[in-house]
Amino acid sequence: MADSRSLLDTINSPRDLKKLSIRQLETLANECRHELINLISLNGGHFASSLGVTELSVALHHVYNTEKDRIVWDVGHQAYIHKMLTGRRERMNSNRKYGGISGFPKIHESPHDAFGTGHASTSISAAAGIASARDLKGGNEKVIAVIGDGSMTGGMAFEAMNHLGDLKNDVLVILNDNQMAISPSTGGLKTHMVNFTLNKTYNKARRLLWESMSMMNNDLAERAKTSLRRLEDGMKAALTPGAFFEALGLRYFGPIDGHNMGQLVRALREMQQLPHPKLLHVITTKGKGFLPAEENQSDWHAHNGGFDTVTGITAKKEGPSATPKYQEVFGEALVEMALKDPAITAITAAMPTGTSLDMFQKAIPDRFYDVGIAEGHAVTFAAGQALEGLKPVCAIYSTFLQRALDQVIHDVALQNLPVVFAIDRAGLVGEDGPTHHGAFDLSYLHAVPGLTIMAPSDGQELRDMLHTALYHINGPVAIRYPRGSTSGKEMRKNFTALEPGKGRMLKEGTGPVILTLGTMAATALEAGRLLENEGISVEIADMRFLKPLDTALIDRLSASATHIVTLEENSIIGGLGSAVADHLSEASKKTRLLRIGLPDAFVTHGSMTDLYRETGLDAPAVAEKIRLFYTGRES
Amino acid sequence: MADSRSLLDTINSPRDLKKLSIRQLETLANECRHELINLISLNGGHFASSLGVTELSVALHHVYNTEKDRIVWDVGHQAYIHKMLTGRRERMNSNRKYGGISGFPKIHESPHDAFGTGHASTSISAAAGIASARDLKGGNEKVIAVIGDGSMTGGMAFEAMNHLGDLKNDVLVILNDNQMAISPSTGGLKTHMVNFTLNKTYNKARRLLWESMSMMNNDLAERAKTSLRRLEDGMKAALTPGAFFEALGLRYFGPIDGHNMGQLVRALREMQQLPHPKLLHVITTKGKGFLPAEENQSDWHAHNGGFDTVTGITAKKEGPSATPKYQEVFGEALVEMALKDPAITAITAAMPTGTSLDMFQKAIPDRFYDVGIAEGHAVTFAAGQALEGLKPVCAIYSTFLQRALDQVIHDVALQNLPVVFAIDRAGLVGEDGPTHHGAFDLSYLHAVPGLTIMAPSDGQELRDMLHTALYHINGPVAIRYPRGSTSGKEMRKNFTALEPGKGRMLKEGTGPVILTLGTMAATALEAGRLLENEGISVEIADMRFLKPLDTALIDRLSASATHIVTLEENSIIGGLGSAVADHLSEASKKTRLLRIGLPDAFVTHGSMTDLYRETGLDAPAVAEKIRLFYTGRES
Repeated sequence: MADSRSLLDTINSPRDLKKLSIRQLETLANECRHELINLISLNGGHFASSLGVTELSVALHHVYNTEKDRIVWDVGHQAYIHKMLTGRRERMNSNRKYGGISGFPKIHESPHDAFGTGHASTSISAAAGIASARDLKGGNEKVIAVIGDGSMTGGMAFEAMNHLGDLKNDVLVILNDNQMAISPSTGGLKTHMVNFTLNKTYNKARRLLWESMSMMNNDLAERAKTSLRRLEDGMKAALTPGAFFEALGLRYFGPIDGHNMGQLVRALREMQQLPHPKLLHVITTKGKGFLPAEENQSDWHAHNGGFDTVTGITAKKEGPSATPKYQEVFGEALVEMALKDPAITAITAAMPTGTSLDMFQKAIPDRFYDVGIAEGHAVTFAAGQALEGLKPVCAIYSTFLQRALDQVIHDVALQNLPVVFAIDRAGLVGEDGPTHHGAFDLSYLHAVPGLTIMAPSDGQELRDMLHTALYHINGPVAIRYPRGSTSGKEMRKNFTALEPGKGRMLKEGTGPVILTLGTMAATALEAGRLLENEGISVEIADMRFLKPLDTALIDRLSASATHIVTLEENSIIGGLGSAVADHLSEASKKTRLLRIGLPDAFVTHGSMTDLYRETGLDAPAVAEKIRLFYTGRES
Repeated sequence: MADSRSLLDTINSPRDLKKLSIRQLETLANECRHELINLISLNGGHFASSLGVTELSVALHHVYNTEKDRIVWDVGHQAYIHKMLTGRRERMNSNRKYGGISGFPKIHESPHDAFGTGHASTSISAAAGIASARDLKGGNEKVIAVIGDGSMTGGMAFEAMNHLGDLKNDVLVILNDNQMAISPSTGGLKTHMVNFTLNKTYNKARRLLWESMSMMNNDLAERAKTSLRRLEDGMKAALTPGAFFEALGLRYFGPIDGHNMGQLVRALREMQQLPHPKLLHVITTKGKGFLPAEENQSDWHAHNGGFDTVTGITAKKEGPSATPKYQEVFGEALVEMALKDPAITAITAAMPTGTSLDMFQKAIPDRFYDVGIAEGHAVTFAAGQALEGLKPVCAIYSTFLQRALDQVIHDVALQNLPVVFAIDRAGLVGEDGPTHHGAFDLSYLHAVPGLTIMAPSDGQELRDMLHTALYHINGPVAIRYPRGSTSGKEMRKNFTALEPGKGRMLKEGTGPVILTLGTMAATALEAGRLLENEGISVEIADMRFLKPLDTALIDRLSASATHIVTLEENSIIGGLGSAVADHLSEASKKTRLLRIGLPDAFVTHGSMTDLYRETGLDAPAVAEKIRLFYTGRES
C-alpha cells in the first residue's frame, strides 16, 4: 500500500520514531493517515477517531517508550495508528476479522497495549491503578490515558480523576477533544469547554489586567500588583476549561492543536517533567485529513469499506436487497406510538444513531434525551420520569447495560416503575468482539424481581413487544434484540398485544422439543428442517418471555417429550436454559434437557458466520447437537 | 418523649411549618434534634447525618411544599427529621423494625417521599428525570436533590449534573457538605472545596482588586475598571468551590452555614426564584448538637441504641460474649498476609470501617486505597494494579458491586486478571432492608467467564478462602460472606489452601441430600438435626464453590439420592440452585431437586430473625420444606 521509499517502511518498532525530526514526524503522520484511509476503504473498521489522533499517536511514540511506558487508549477505536506503529502494520488488513487482530487494544496482542479497552471511560481508572502499582514498586515508567471528550462524560472518568487528585501520582491524562464522541456529545461540561475554546474573554481580560498594573506606581500599587499577579495565576487555572480539572486536583495544560506536531511534541516533553497528575487538552478534528469524514463525523465513525479514498463515495454492495434492521423497526415503531402518546419519551446514552433513536430525536425532539455516555444516570433519570407518569423507553446496548445493573434493580425494579429497556445488540455482534457481544443480559437480569424479560423473533414481534411493554405490563420491562436485520417479512401496520408470559408453538412434532427465545427461532426452524430430512420430527416453541416463563407450555410439552433442548444467544449460564432447568428439576421427570447457548467463555471477534460456527450456534451445528442428544449417534 | 407544650407537638403536617417565624423554626429544629437523639438512644438507627441536616430539613419544609414539590434525599440516611415532619413522628420508634417504617425514604410509605433511595449518588439523576417530566407536562412544582459530599464522589452524580447543564431545567441541588461521608471522603474535589471553605484567598484578592481600581482615574483606567469588574464576576464563579459546578452548567451559590436558620431560609427563597439548574452549597456538621457524635462521626454514623443522651456512653448489652465478625476475620487475615507479601493491596469504595479494611489502612497505609463512593472505578483501578503484578483485594458490599458489574466483566474477567473481590454483606442484612440486602451477587456473577466464586461457612474458612484466592487461583476470584458474626470457633493460626472447585461432606446420611453454600451450612446442619429427630436421615455437603461447581460430588451424591435440596442465601434464581439444576438436568435422572433460597421478590427490612422467618430460611422452615419435599407430608 505504502510507497516503497516511504518513511513508514523504515519503522520497524516505535524505537525508530525516536530519532526523527518534527518534519519527519509530520511526514510519517501523513503516510500513516493515507495508509489508514486505504486500509479502511478496503477492509472497513473504525475510522474517524483514528484519523483524528494520527499526529498525537506519532508524537506519543516519539516522546514515550511503550516498551516501558504505558499508554491506555480509552475505548480504543482511536488506536489504529498506534497498532500500525507497534509491529502490527502488516496485520492491519486482518483487523476485526476472525483470527485477525482486534479492533481494540488487547494486552495479549501486543506488549505495547497497556490495557484492553472497548467500553468508554475506563482509561483513567486503569492508568491510576497502573501508576499506583509503579509507585509501590519504585518504577519510573510514565503512565498515560488518552480519552475523548465523549468518554469524559462517563461517571467513571470523574471518579478516577477525583481519586487521582487524592493519590497525586504521576499520570498524564490526554483529553482528545474532538467535540464529538460517536454522536455530538452533550452536557454542560461540553458547552463550557467549547465556549472557552472559542471565545477570547480570557486573553482580553488578562491584557487589560496587565495594562492596569502598568499604570500603578506607588506602594499600594506594588502590593496590588503582587496580588494581581497571583490573581492572574488563579485566573489562568480558573477561567480556562482547566477550572473543572484543577478542582479535581489535576493540573491543566492547553488547549493545544492536536494536528500541530511541533506543539504536540513540545507539550508532551513538558508533561514528562511533571511528577503529578495532569491533563493535557488537545483539540483534534475527527476524521482529519479525509474530507467526507470531517464533514460527516457520525456517519464515518466506522465504515464497512468499499469507498473511494478521495470522494468517500461508497460502492453499492452486491447481494440481496437489505431488509430493515431491528434498530430501524424499533425506532420507527417507537416514533409511531409516541406521536399518538405524549407520555412516551426516549433516552439514549450517546447512541442515537446506533439505536435508531435519531428517528425519535428528529420527530419529537422535546421528548428525546441523549444523556452522554452515562448508562447509570440514564436508567435512574428514566426512573424519575416513570415516577411522574411518563413512559420512558431507555435504549441501551446489552453490553453497556452492564454499567447500570444497580440502577435497574435499585431505582427501577424496587419501585416497580414502568421503564422499558430496549436492549440493543443482544447476542453476538460480530467484528467488535468480546467487549461488545451482548452475551450476559439474560443472566444478569433474570433474578431482578418484577422485571418482565422478552425477546422478539422477528420485526413484527419487536413492534408487538414494544406495544405490549408500553400498554399491557405494569412494571419494568426488558426487550432484547440483536444487531442486524429482521427477516424483512411484511409488517402489519397495527400492533398486537401479546399475553405476558406466554410462548407460542412454531412447529408441531413427535421427537425432541426445541424451546427458543428471540431470533434463535429461525435457527431452530432451520435445524428442525435438517433433522426432519433425517427422519427426526422436531417440535419447536418460541418462549417469547424469559420472565415470566411459560411453565404451562413447558409442562405440556415435557409431558410427552423425552428430550428438551433450549436454544438461546446468551451465555449458557443463567438464561433460558437455566430457567427451564430450574423448572424441570422440581418434578421427577424422565425428560432430559440439553442447553444450547453461548459458551461460558469470552467469544472472539469475526463475522457472524465465523462466530456462529465457532460457538456451535449455526443450524447445522445445532442440528448435530440435537441429533447426538436425541439418538446418541453422531452424524 | 417531647415536652407536652412543645412546638413539635403542634406540627401535624408540613403545612404547619409555613407560618412559623425564623425563631420558631429554630426552636422546632432543636426539639426535633432532641427527639431524634432520644429516639436513637432507645431504638438505634442512622444518626449523625440526620442531626447534621436538622435545620436544613426544617427550612426545606418551611419554604417548600412537599405535597407538590419533590425532595429527593440522596442515600436517605439523613431523612429522619423529614420523616418526623411528614406524618411519621409517632411511628419513628418502629423505624427499621420488621413491619415498621423504613430507614430510607420510600415512595409507598409517604407521598412526601419523592423517590426511594438507599444507594449513593442517585438523587440528581432522579431529580433531573422528575423535573423533565414536570416540564413536559407543564407543571410548576419545584424539584430538589439533597446530596452529601460523599455521594458527590460517585460518578452518577457527575453524569447527572452534566446532563442537567444540558437540560437547563429548574432543579435545585443542595450539597450537604459535612466533609465526611460515612468515612472521611477522599478525592481531589474534596481537597479543593475544603481549601476554599477554609482559606481567605478569594476575599483578600477581591479586596486588593478593588483597592487597585480606586487608585486609577484616567480613561484607560476606566476601561480597565470595567474589565476588572467583569473579572471579579468571573473570579467569584471561578475561584470559589463553584468553579467545578459552574463548569457543568449549574449556577453555584454558597457556601452558607447549614445550622443558621435565617441564612438557610433566605437562601432557599432565593433559589425558588431561579428557573434553571443551580447548586446551593451548605456546610453542616455531622452529628451536630450531640457532642460525642460531632467528635467521632464515623463511629456515630449509625448506632444500635442504648446510649446516654448526653455523654454518649453506651450500656453493655447482655447476652453471650461477641464472636468475631466476618468483617474482622477478613480484615485481620488480609493484614496478616499483606505484612508478609508486598504485592497485596486493599481497595474500598468509602467503606473502610464497614469492611474492616480500616485495619489494613492502619497497618499498611501505603497499600490501602479508599477511592470514594466509586465502585466502578474501584474495580478498574484494581485491574490496573493486577496487570502490573500486584494482588489487589477489592472489598465491596454485594449490593454495591451491582454498580461495577461491567468493570468486573470487561476490565477484570476479560483480561483474566487476579483481582480478589471480597463481597461483603452477601445475603440478608437485616434492618437496612431491600436496598442493602446482598440478594443477587451469585446470580449476576455466575455467568462471568473465568471467575471463581466461593463462600465460606465460617471464620476459618474465610481465612482459607482468602489465602486460596491470593495464592492458588490464577484469575479473578469472588468470595462472598455475610454481615454478622462467625461461630467464634477457635481459628488456626495458619492458612490451608482449598482445592478450587471442590466441596466437602458435612454429614453422611441415607435420605435427602442438602447442598449448601456459605453460611447456610449451619442452617443445613440444624435442619438436619430437626429432621433426624423425626427419623429422616439427611446427608449434607458444603459446596464451597459455586464456580467451578463440584459436579463430581453432585454426581456421586445423586447416584444414590432421590431428593436433592439446595440451600443458599441468594435469590432463588441464578445461584447455587440453578447451577445444580443446570447440571442435574443434563442427565436423565430420577433425582428431584428442591431449591431453597431467597424468594424472587424484594425482601423487606427487620431483624435477621424476622427476615429468616419471613423468607422461610430459618432451620425449622427449611426442615419443614425438606420434609414435605421428601415425604410429601406436612409436619
